[in-house]
Amino acid sequence: MFSASEVPSTKSERTRALLRGIALTSFRERGYDATTIRQIAAEAGVSVGTTNYHFASKNQLVQELYLDVQQGHRSAAEPLLAASDDLIERLGIVYRTGLEQLEPYHPHAGELLSAAVSPRSAINPLSVQSAPALEVVEGLFQEAVSGATHRLPSEFVDALPRALVLAHLLLALFWVYDSSPGQERTQALLSRGLRLLKLALPLTRVPVLRAPLRELLEMVGEVRA
Amino acid sequence: MFSASEVPSTKSERTRALLRGIALTSFRERGYDATTIRQIAAEAGVSVGTTNYHFASKNQLVQELYLDVQQGHRSAAEPLLAASDDLIERLGIVYRTGLEQLEPYHPHAGELLSAAVSPRSAINPLSVQSAPALEVVEGLFQEAVSGATHRLPSEFVDALPRALVLAHLLLALFWVYDSSPGQERTQALLSRGLRLLKLALPLTRVPVLRAPLRELLEMVGEVRA
Repeated sequence: MFSASEVPSTKSERTRALLRGIALTSFRERGYDATTIRQIAAEAGVSVGTTNYHFASKNQLVQELYLDVQQGHRSAAEPLLAASDDLIERLGIVYRTGLEQLEPYHPHAGELLSAAVSPRSAINPLSVQSAPALEVVEGLFQEAVSGATHRLPSEFVDALPRALVLAHLLLALFWVYDSSPGQERTQALLSRGLRLLKLALPLTRVPVLRAPLRELLEMVGEVRA
Repeated sequence: MFSASEVPSTKSERTRALLRGIALTSFRERGYDATTIRQIAAEAGVSVGTTNYHFASKNQLVQELYLDVQQGHRSAAEPLLAASDDLIERLGIVYRTGLEQLEPYHPHAGELLSAAVSPRSAINPLSVQSAPALEVVEGLFQEAVSGATHRLPSEFVDALPRALVLAHLLLALFWVYDSSPGQERTQALLSRGLRLLKLALPLTRVPVLRAPLRELLEMVGEVRA
């Protein structure tokens, strides 16, 4: 057993990576409730103290999970985004690759939701601690909109990504509850939502509809303010 | 101390009402986590066995809380509904009286949300066990729509209450997170939503918009299917 501060940088990094990998596998296979710092330390063959040196709490490891999922999301989405300039197609890419990343976590998603949903939870997706992971998602939706060819009025272009991220969070909430095979109901809901958006977006250029649609978009943005 | 089965009906009913009242006060003042069957029994001066005879679990007492809130909701809404036949006004009445009932529970609402949000939770608002309380809310929204004068196409009249109930659940979710004084942000969001609905409902009679609006309403209904 070693004191973490004496570990050479590379060995320390290997220990950190090992602990992180064990934690992520455990969250996926056993779930949030059954995963503990003690068990992670035992599996890694290091002390609880060493584990806590790298990760001060279980919730800090959940943040690693969030980052891992969102970095995977970005890696899956970007090559596909490079191949399309259609706005709705691009949004479909970001939503679908996002759901794909979540898929292995579905069996224990209810537990994680319980732990994360409280407004005061450090692993709430809207908490300060979760901001780095959420910024990855926000960046992807901004990229999906800004890289598309469309004729949307500029106030819609500016407000859209924020609303799309909220829709992503609500879709993930629906997905937690979705017990259909392969979560096909979530896929179907997403497809319907995208078809509807395809119908609705051109209406932003109809003068009489522009104000109510802008109001809708602003209201959705306000929910996350 | 007495055996519950020997208690005359009226005394048993009084004990049940006492336990129920203590539990509801405790959920409001101490929150879900700190409320236990043991503590309720002690406060009532009866045994844990007697308490369990009346209420098999803490979650059964949460169901009593849900029913109490929704019965209060109905009592508050109905006299106001009797005084208006405007659809948007009537919907505002049902939403606002619903939020009023929740108000005393706001300080501990995050805890209750954590306990209730898991798909497998017996106190999930969409669980079989919670159906009686949810039916009260559904009945109120049906009454708000059916008692209003409007010229909505019939397929909208049929699908609207289901979507309105979902909006109510999402508004309650927003309210849990709302730390503004008196939850005024939730009130503001509701007012915006109602203004938008007032703009959108007449559009259901515009032929080119009828299909996308029906699709939107059906999609929202699908979320709760």
